[in-house]
Amino acid sequence: MSHTTTNAEGNGATFNPEILHRALLGTWPEARLHSRALSAHPDMHRDNALGMDAHRDRVLGQLKLLVEDGQVHAAFPKSVGGREDHGGNIAGFEELVTADPSLQIKAGVQWGLFGSAVMHLGTAEHHKRWLPGIMSLDIPGVFAMTETGHGSDVASIGTTATFDPDTDEFVINTPFRGAWKDYLGNAALHGIAGVLFAQLITEGVNHGVHAFFIDLRDEHGDFLPGIGGEDDGLKGGLNGIDNGRLHFTDVRIPRTNLLNRYGDVAADGSYSSPIESPGRRFFTMLGTLVQGRVSLDGAATVASAMALQIALTYANERRQFNAASEVDEEVLLDYQRHQRRLIPKLAQTFAQNFAHDELLTKFDAVFSGKHDTDEDRQDLETLAAALKSLSTWNALDVIQEAREACGGAGFLAENRLVGLRADLDVYVTFEGDNTVLLQLVAKRLLGDYARRFKGASGGDLARFAVGQATDRAFHGSGLRRLTQNVADLGQVSRSVGHVRDEDEQRDLLTGRVETMIGEIAGRLRPANKMGPAAAAALFNTQQNELIEAARAHAELLQWEAFTRALEKIEDPGTLTVLTWLRDLFGLSLIEKHAAWYLINGRLSPARAQAVTAYIDRLVDRLRPQAQGLAEAFGYEQAHLRAYIASGAEAERQNEAREYYRAQRASGEAPIAEKTLKKKAARR
Amino acid sequence: MSHTTTNAEGNGATFNPEILHRALLGTWPEARLHSRALSAHPDMHRDNALGMDAHRDRVLGQLKLLVEDGQVHAAFPKSVGGREDHGGNIAGFEELVTADPSLQIKAGVQWGLFGSAVMHLGTAEHHKRWLPGIMSLDIPGVFAMTETGHGSDVASIGTTATFDPDTDEFVINTPFRGAWKDYLGNAALHGIAGVLFAQLITEGVNHGVHAFFIDLRDEHGDFLPGIGGEDDGLKGGLNGIDNGRLHFTDVRIPRTNLLNRYGDVAADGSYSSPIESPGRRFFTMLGTLVQGRVSLDGAATVASAMALQIALTYANERRQFNAASEVDEEVLLDYQRHQRRLIPKLAQTFAQNFAHDELLTKFDAVFSGKHDTDEDRQDLETLAAALKSLSTWNALDVIQEAREACGGAGFLAENRLVGLRADLDVYVTFEGDNTVLLQLVAKRLLGDYARRFKGASGGDLARFAVGQATDRAFHGSGLRRLTQNVADLGQVSRSVGHVRDEDEQRDLLTGRVETMIGEIAGRLRPANKMGPAAAAALFNTQQNELIEAARAHAELLQWEAFTRALEKIEDPGTLTVLTWLRDLFGLSLIEKHAAWYLINGRLSPARAQAVTAYIDRLVDRLRPQAQGLAEAFGYEQAHLRAYIASGAEAERQNEAREYYRAQRASGEAPIAEKTLKKKAARR
Repeated sequence: MSHTTTNAEGNGATFNPEILHRALLGTWPEARLHSRALSAHPDMHRDNALGMDAHRDRVLGQLKLLVEDGQVHAAFPKSVGGREDHGGNIAGFEELVTADPSLQIKAGVQWGLFGSAVMHLGTAEHHKRWLPGIMSLDIPGVFAMTETGHGSDVASIGTTATFDPDTDEFVINTPFRGAWKDYLGNAALHGIAGVLFAQLITEGVNHGVHAFFIDLRDEHGDFLPGIGGEDDGLKGGLNGIDNGRLHFTDVRIPRTNLLNRYGDVAADGSYSSPIESPGRRFFTMLGTLVQGRVSLDGAATVASAMALQIALTYANERRQFNAASEVDEEVLLDYQRHQRRLIPKLAQTFAQNFAHDELLTKFDAVFSGKHDTDEDRQDLETLAAALKSLSTWNALDVIQEAREACGGAGFLAENRLVGLRADLDVYVTFEGDNTVLLQLVAKRLLGDYARRFKGASGGDLARFAVGQATDRAFHGSGLRRLTQNVADLGQVSRSVGHVRDEDEQRDLLTGRVETMIGEIAGRLRPANKMGPAAAAALFNTQQNELIEAARAHAELLQWEAFTRALEKIEDPGTLTVLTWLRDLFGLSLIEKHAAWYLINGRLSPARAQAVTAYIDRLVDRLRPQAQGLAEAFGYEQAHLRAYIASGAEAERQNEAREYYRAQRASGEAPIAEKTLKKKAARR
Repeated sequence: MSHTTTNAEGNGATFNPEILHRALLGTWPEARLHSRALSAHPDMHRDNALGMDAHRDRVLGQLKLLVEDGQVHAAFPKSVGGREDHGGNIAGFEELVTADPSLQIKAGVQWGLFGSAVMHLGTAEHHKRWLPGIMSLDIPGVFAMTETGHGSDVASIGTTATFDPDTDEFVINTPFRGAWKDYLGNAALHGIAGVLFAQLITEGVNHGVHAFFIDLRDEHGDFLPGIGGEDDGLKGGLNGIDNGRLHFTDVRIPRTNLLNRYGDVAADGSYSSPIESPGRRFFTMLGTLVQGRVSLDGAATVASAMALQIALTYANERRQFNAASEVDEEVLLDYQRHQRRLIPKLAQTFAQNFAHDELLTKFDAVFSGKHDTDEDRQDLETLAAALKSLSTWNALDVIQEAREACGGAGFLAENRLVGLRADLDVYVTFEGDNTVLLQLVAKRLLGDYARRFKGASGGDLARFAVGQATDRAFHGSGLRRLTQNVADLGQVSRSVGHVRDEDEQRDLLTGRVETMIGEIAGRLRPANKMGPAAAAALFNTQQNELIEAARAHAELLQWEAFTRALEKIEDPGTLTVLTWLRDLFGLSLIEKHAAWYLINGRLSPARAQAVTAYIDRLVDRLRPQAQGLAEAFGYEQAHLRAYIASGAEAERQNEAREYYRAQRASGEAPIAEKTLKKKAARR
């Protein structure tokens, strides 16, 4: 097979590795490179030989190295020695996944959740009192939000904090087993304090979920009176973190331990808040904690890039068949199926990388105060929910495909992939279950849709619905498809020209989201006239479709980000190759949803086939560049630490071929029985 | 939401649990039930607390319990105390996965691979000499086939066994690093002997791969002279098995250690074989070892059923929102998305179960000698390759979906799912990499296709190709689609009637396989006139499509098996419910491949939508039966061992609701701020 392709479409283009590397590093290159240099140090690495207990100890020790390094303090207020650098902090944090995902997530618990909660929900006095100890790890802490009985539904947690004006204290209680705090990092062993989320009750009124600083363990590591707990034990991954459960019985904490930025209780028991609506107050408090989702989007992308580099390196060295043959055999990546398995995933990972940088920029703008309106925060939350869902699921797909593409070798811990997958598994359900997050995205899309028709009379809406139906009938009848057939004159090349076009890709991706949301909105309209139960039942009939619409929206966001990234590339070769990758990403999405496009008349059968044909062509064209594209992310052996991607395989292949070459040269090679029989038959 | 559905199509039907249970147990119920009873014993269970070394020890001890039980001896010759019960042996073996997949696979290495190789490739003298020790575990052994440099390509292994007539010995050598034996269970620690696959060389001729019995370790567990090795170390799962590597330098074994059923060397060094063709001889030898693939198909199905029972039980107990509410809230499985995630996978698992029983019956017929022609063996190998690929991949999908459906609880080892997934991961690439196996299936399909036209002149083939093209143009132009549109008169109900029809499902599934294979064959035709390199390159352009065609074939086989299973059900309610499940399985396949059906004009857009609409209806109809359907497989708490599926969740939910109910009754419940504000606004 030949992989040197030259044709009128500008093939043979090559990218500039340094330009591409810089583009992938994004807006906070120094923070990323600093964190990678730190993560390259052996002291920071996962040691597979360690059992759960020793792994937990090691990770705690590694957190102390992070304190020494100091980058984990970047986001904290200048008043306590931080830099208030929100974007750079997250960028650096994400790269820790290369050292050990347990290390990353335990650091996230300490500084990203526990520390951030004190920072964002507390006030200056709280900062002064607790942030220095949190930053220095003198106060290892727990972020006690989730309960056994309540995962994604934080508003309904059962833990109560009831104000007692007689003693000026809150009394913390766990009323039943389902209200135990659960899955909390640092809770099983290391946490001596925590931020606890509980229903704030004062003067007989429940003001909803608020956060409290609470001491958990004494200087011997024993629970304080009234506090109990359990170890969550072994998990599917992330076993360097001591997750556990906590429960509270009449535990008293000072009134001033309430992190009172968004809601306070005076000594007389009266409640006050700068945010009037309890609902908005709750979402404002939770919204300050969005950075977990933001950082998981980035960390999932880092892990995907590493897995692809491992699998592509192996696929470019491993020869599948017969080293004894006299001709140089194909390597794995020469096989079409192998290309199809890995190269579109490379395009997907590039899209995620660029989309993530936009998300991080948005996050930084909000948290630095540069662009911090209510709408900015809502956009940020929707974007984070959309991107985190797709990228964390995708990381599992990518790592698994990489592991399978490396065969049995991929299953060995020494080749890294199985450990990465096990650790990242929970990323799809923590910091917001992906399925729940996509529903939040969908509700936002429905809300935006409804706003477009705000003030419109029922008649207007009905007319719109009719207009849509007409449009649908037009598409559904195949008329548009027939037009496409005529326009393309049945030529695949002409069809390819259409689907390759950037605007056409955008139209297809955008049109799908809009149509899906419009149709769902239409089907949900009767809910306005229904009782709550019937409305909920109607809504439930659309749940599956809603989630698919949210996914389509998130895919569009990734595609748009990739396309915007192209605008910043000036080097022609780099631009050409990146455009192929973007096209591969866009067309892979369209191919995945081809049935929808065909049913809705947006693609003719000929164009749907052209999409697949052009994907084949792009994959073939990108094949010789795949290794370099994966390496452009910039991960080194100290990050990959996969024996099969270290050059060992190429060495083994060369040794085997040298052996057979020498044997042939010596004239002492045994003759194959088959060859002998053929010769005999000829005689 | 209401789940009591009654309509003209016979809803409200219920199945008979015992009849269904028996149907699922298949042809060897006693062997399965015996093995399940054994596996229910705590001594047989995985202990999550154990690290790799202790887990290996435990599993070795469990193998001794299997020896005491004796069922693992069922397949061995009566001459050494076996029962020659091949089907029953595998049926029982598969159920061991409920105890610990490591235990299952280590047992498979000892008796299914090592023991079977001696049984099938050796002769009576070998049986007498080694089988008793293998059966009793006095000889723990290694199946030394795979090499680091050769996974699925056994014919190209590098290890040599050169006959030395002077000493009447074979000399075993590992010529280079890539020829080390690798990933071998029992090799790192416990194996004292093994069956070694090596190129047999005598009188200067290489007769290809043969199997040899070889001693590996002395009574102290040290390697014999000339033998060395390494531990493969930690893996992604199955860490109760001591996988390792072996290499050989001038290791001498007696001539009579050659397992000589299919090829022998006389004392004078002359080679003889009952099978003339070296190629056919090789495949005959390998074919005797098909039982590994057969049993993985069954074990993957067992694991899928367990995972679904765990997730469905939790989904039927867990209430997502607000235990404080006065009305009884939905459980997770009331949500449409949750139904869509789990119930089609239940249908898939039923299909696998029935297909597996057919595979096992075929296996038993071949190995018992009842139906043991060359064609029977080829059919068996194709069927095993097709079904093993789909079911092992599907097991990973099912277990992962189950784990995510259980949220954070699904990630805890105590809830079993993560361990099952980690262990079953390697099932997709061992005993034949699934991707390679599907290519074998595809080649068989292409061969069958070519045979249909054997003797046809080039002109005939060309005419067929044209006929096909015409047919395609007909479909592609949308004419058939338009006919469907007219026939259905745009009514979804009428379309549903069509797609629900059994014959229609069969036509769609069969037509897809035939068309895909026909098209690929057409595109490959020029290869006949090409040189080998060009032909290989042409073939490579079809590799992806070929694998998809093989998958389509395997799906059809599963659907056919499910449909045949319906014929054996006499109880009307059971038949109705099982038919819904079969339809759900068939239509889910058609939905998955809807783009193909639309592009090829086999489905109109209206019918494609009808497929989805009917799937929704079936899922809704099956929802109240889902728990019972999962339980019909018959796994008990002693097999599931998942805390969240033990009833603990229901208990927690009841406790929480009781707490709120009592609080409301007492009149001491705090009033919500929101309620207070609403009241104030009304004043």
